[in-house]
Amino acid sequence: MPPSGRILKRLLVGRAMRSDRLGETLLPKKLALPIFASDALSSVAYAPDEILLTLGLAGGSLAMLHSWKIGLCVVFVMLVVVASYRQNVHAYPSGGGDYEVATTNLGPRAGLTVASALLVDYVLTVAVSISSGVQNAAAAIPFIRGHEAVLAVAIVAVLTAMNLRGVRESGKTFAVPVYLFMTSVIGMALVGLFRELTGNLPDAESASLQLRPETGFESLGGLALVFLLLRAFSSGCAALTGVEAISNGVPAFKKPKSRNAATTLLMMGLIAVTMLMSMIVLATWTGIKYAEDPQTQLLRDGRPVGASYVQDTIMGQVAKAVFQGFHPGVVFVSIVAGLILILAANTAFNGFPVLGSILAKDGYLPRQLHTRGDRLAFSNGILILAGAAAFLIVLYNAEVTKLIQLYIVGVFVSFTLSQTGMIRHWNRHLRVERDPAARRRMQRSRVINAIGATMSGTVLVVVLLTKFVHGAGYAIAAMVVLFFLMLGIHRHYQRVRDELRVSEDDVSAQLLPSRVHAIVLVSKIHKPTLRALAYARATRPSILEAITVNVEPDETRALQEEWDRRGIPVALKALDSPYREITRPVVDYVKSIRSGHPRDVVVVYIPEYVLGRWYEQLLHNQSALRLKGRLLFTPGVMVASVPWQLESSEGQEERLDGPSVGSVRLGK
Amino acid sequence: MPPSGRILKRLLVGRAMRSDRLGETLLPKKLALPIFASDALSSVAYAPDEILLTLGLAGGSLAMLHSWKIGLCVVFVMLVVVASYRQNVHAYPSGGGDYEVATTNLGPRAGLTVASALLVDYVLTVAVSISSGVQNAAAAIPFIRGHEAVLAVAIVAVLTAMNLRGVRESGKTFAVPVYLFMTSVIGMALVGLFRELTGNLPDAESASLQLRPETGFESLGGLALVFLLLRAFSSGCAALTGVEAISNGVPAFKKPKSRNAATTLLMMGLIAVTMLMSMIVLATWTGIKYAEDPQTQLLRDGRPVGASYVQDTIMGQVAKAVFQGFHPGVVFVSIVAGLILILAANTAFNGFPVLGSILAKDGYLPRQLHTRGDRLAFSNGILILAGAAAFLIVLYNAEVTKLIQLYIVGVFVSFTLSQTGMIRHWNRHLRVERDPAARRRMQRSRVINAIGATMSGTVLVVVLLTKFVHGAGYAIAAMVVLFFLMLGIHRHYQRVRDELRVSEDDVSAQLLPSRVHAIVLVSKIHKPTLRALAYARATRPSILEAITVNVEPDETRALQEEWDRRGIPVALKALDSPYREITRPVVDYVKSIRSGHPRDVVVVYIPEYVLGRWYEQLLHNQSALRLKGRLLFTPGVMVASVPWQLESSEGQEERLDGPSVGSVRLGK
Repeated sequence: MPPSGRILKRLLVGRAMRSDRLGETLLPKKLALPIFASDALSSVAYAPDEILLTLGLAGGSLAMLHSWKIGLCVVFVMLVVVASYRQNVHAYPSGGGDYEVATTNLGPRAGLTVASALLVDYVLTVAVSISSGVQNAAAAIPFIRGHEAVLAVAIVAVLTAMNLRGVRESGKTFAVPVYLFMTSVIGMALVGLFRELTGNLPDAESASLQLRPETGFESLGGLALVFLLLRAFSSGCAALTGVEAISNGVPAFKKPKSRNAATTLLMMGLIAVTMLMSMIVLATWTGIKYAEDPQTQLLRDGRPVGASYVQDTIMGQVAKAVFQGFHPGVVFVSIVAGLILILAANTAFNGFPVLGSILAKDGYLPRQLHTRGDRLAFSNGILILAGAAAFLIVLYNAEVTKLIQLYIVGVFVSFTLSQTGMIRHWNRHLRVERDPAARRRMQRSRVINAIGATMSGTVLVVVLLTKFVHGAGYAIAAMVVLFFLMLGIHRHYQRVRDELRVSEDDVSAQLLPSRVHAIVLVSKIHKPTLRALAYARATRPSILEAITVNVEPDETRALQEEWDRRGIPVALKALDSPYREITRPVVDYVKSIRSGHPRDVVVVYIPEYVLGRWYEQLLHNQSALRLKGRLLFTPGVMVASVPWQLESSEGQEERLDGPSVGSVRLGK
Repeated sequence: MPPSGRILKRLLVGRAMRSDRLGETLLPKKLALPIFASDALSSVAYAPDEILLTLGLAGGSLAMLHSWKIGLCVVFVMLVVVASYRQNVHAYPSGGGDYEVATTNLGPRAGLTVASALLVDYVLTVAVSISSGVQNAAAAIPFIRGHEAVLAVAIVAVLTAMNLRGVRESGKTFAVPVYLFMTSVIGMALVGLFRELTGNLPDAESASLQLRPETGFESLGGLALVFLLLRAFSSGCAALTGVEAISNGVPAFKKPKSRNAATTLLMMGLIAVTMLMSMIVLATWTGIKYAEDPQTQLLRDGRPVGASYVQDTIMGQVAKAVFQGFHPGVVFVSIVAGLILILAANTAFNGFPVLGSILAKDGYLPRQLHTRGDRLAFSNGILILAGAAAFLIVLYNAEVTKLIQLYIVGVFVSFTLSQTGMIRHWNRHLRVERDPAARRRMQRSRVINAIGATMSGTVLVVVLLTKFVHGAGYAIAAMVVLFFLMLGIHRHYQRVRDELRVSEDDVSAQLLPSRVHAIVLVSKIHKPTLRALAYARATRPSILEAITVNVEPDETRALQEEWDRRGIPVALKALDSPYREITRPVVDYVKSIRSGHPRDVVVVYIPEYVLGRWYEQLLHNQSALRLKGRLLFTPGVMVASVPWQLESSEGQEERLDGPSVGSVRLGK
């Protein structure tokens, strides 16, 4: 890396950290809450909208009548899931979370299913949250309209850079807005409650409008109505995404890790349901009309409001009603809501790399994902997450309503399998536990987890039924692909390990080759060649010869004459090359040596000169690299590169960290 | 390359050829004419159009009045240039052509200027000819309109594939259409002449139209008129492009090379001027009205013909008039004209790689351009030419009238310098030549070349004056960039050569290192590691040690225990790595050894396992490649790769010809 690149990297990701400073990056509860809970909390900015919008398909009265009931259902599921996960956090403090629970109790296939689901879901969390944040911002800043996808991708890039700096600094950066968001939403709920009780809560702007049902939803029969209610409930369950983040992130907590994590989880659940219900109730009290297609569904005096109507989000409309007469309050809520949505994506930036690293350690993902980067963060995982999320954002043009259809499935797949695994976990422990108090605690946990499993499974079925054709199918497809990909990777690592293993009593592997046959490749007589010859002679091989490839006979003859004139004390042999190739004659010659003496080892010395600048390398043939590559496939051969450093290479070693380093001229 | 890829390559470029078959690909005159002359001949399909179109800016009567005079001027220049080049071909049979002539007589800078000009011009030849061919075809096949650029790029691709198959097969493929083109144009001229003499040559369709001058050209004053005539003459000089192709291609001729080339050149010149004048005279006789902007310039009964009017090319209109009553003749001429234009590009496909190869041999272009490919053709040059031409086609959307403005400049730069060089050539030879007959021949040649130089220089000035702002400026800019690029490349090669040179009396370069210090890198104990140890021990180094990098202390301890348990007879040393790096600790350790004993050589043995499939390599850390790259920058170090071939690598060596071969796991 050139100095400027190094400085840029330092500015973006900060100073490298030593391994023994790893302990310092652990999180106290007050930082863990904003980091791991921002996803779950932020969904209050879009989950009520999705419930109202879905119900609104069948008209305004239906939404008014049922929205709070649907809200209560979501709250109930949320509380059950939180209670269940508190059992997980205590039982598995190592932070494998759902993946570890499913693997341990239901086997590796179940674990891999959970992992696939979670990986897909993390990507969607980033895509949905940031898209929603940008769409919120677009309502306030019209300039953004038409550039949502570009802005969203830019925000992904900024988040990526921040996370590459390391976990704790992210926590500090994000704590303030998350706490401001909680304060502002709950504050708004209290003000709204006070104004309703004192009888002066104003109506929302949209309360005076009529909400017309969409075509086909005018008068729903019993079954169709139930299906619509279930669809609204599914959408509302977006509020539950992110609950599992804490159980996956237990190792990042300060000690006592499990207890701190469980407490944080409970706090988060209570705050989330309070905020969700506040929004739904306030939306009902202020009479908000919210439509999927506002231009045609909303009527003013019997006529559609048309394209000029801008539909604010539920949170925006509630704020305008509650803070009527106090405009700064409205502005504050909208700014904080916009921020929290973008920051929610950060949950995934914490969860995804940890899970990726665990999967890599278990051999299901490439080893590079287990490499800790400069700042102890899992750099590769962060980059993959960012890339996939950016891809989805571009693909769906940052439209939340489309992206949300793919969402949720993954979470409930992992909830269900994890809770089922927990039942088995307690069964196993109950078999050996004798202490009555402990047994009672375990039985209680088992009941909670059983309820959680049943509940999650039911919701999963509902989500699949109501959302499959709207996009959930794609999410399922992505999970299946990931599942088989990870299985394939695992098989590959297993095969390589088996092939390379040496049993402890196997002595043949340590047998020495009988002779060393050294070959020095010569293209012309210059310093690199002479150095390679000197080094080769210094190793005192059994046989030493110099080889050149006869591509142009005149040049070969000139080389031979100079060789003799200089009196170089090694014989020079010319290999014929009728097809003007360099690689094949050398490889064939090496093979012929080996076939005569299979217990010999052939060492091929390649003189190379090392150039400092990448564009200089374009000017030299890559014959050496190609030859080295081919010789690696030839058994019983060792390739020794003898580098000669040109002046331009000095101080350039930092910059060149790739395989394209070093260039050599052979033959012509 | 996988088998399917190999079969595809074989199909596209044919079987590889042995060097000793190079003689077989030489060209007899009857094949050389179509190959090298198609460019010059094909311009008859657009040069008359450009003359008439430019004159037509000032109205129809001016075009009628002056076109044949301008045609005669172009013919005169053509004949002078042909006569001059016949001297070149005899004086320089080695085929360096203009580049060699200018370098030898005017110095390397002049040669480089010529080379830049020719390279740019070859690219433009491909772009202009193919674009013109596609635009011709579009007149016949309306479906093509709107897709001209795509089709033109596709044709470039096909030509590229054909030329990668080798020179002679190209000649055979292209000979038939070139001869058909000559026959049809000259046949058409004869029929036209006969009908004119017998008084029954019909008028062209456009003869009944009026040609209105463009705004600003209504009544030109003396100087403006002269400028317009010069502009028309410049455009007409497009007919001269390609004349130099033969002199650059002398080595491809059968013996006697020079005489055959000179004869071919003369034949080409005579055929070209005959065809050019035939077209211009027939266009005048049939009263063709040809406009740059036909929709508004052409009037029928005083009103513009409008967008529905399709203006056929001059050749098309002439054919319709001459062959009135014999439609197959019209169709035949238009098909053959379309074909010849596309094939003209082939001239450049023969000239560019040869020139690139000569420049590469002289160290002005990357060495890869001097490598003969599978079919004895200069594959890299062919590919670069095709890429640059495709770029221009896309940039100018295959519009001939725009591309032609960039054209011609390069040719006349090279004409002028080459002819000036020839004067010096004869001066030099006359100084030593004593034979009176030879002296007379030389003096005659000198006069011819002097006339050629003056003429070319004048035309160059005219072209620059009349075309600079219309696009010739870009061509000049491209030449300047190429000039300095090639100069820079030359300096680089010179610097490297100076740095690597060993004087014959320098014995220090052959001094042996005092001791060999061998290091085997160990990440875990498996077959590759044990093989590397065995090979290292077989070379009996002065010092041998095994090294591991301590990234995770637990694993290092386990490794150390297994090492001791197996009783491996080499000491294992662990290097600390607080920042979890692999590369830096090893490089630092190697440097510390060297600093204590600067006359030692350090050999680093790296156990590698070789994977067969590219996607498998993604699954393994690239630590070994990175480490090798870094060690190459460290003086006094030799890197020995000890490969272990996994089963999946068998039979894969053909496919992997890049630097990314082989992958190793170090450390973790």
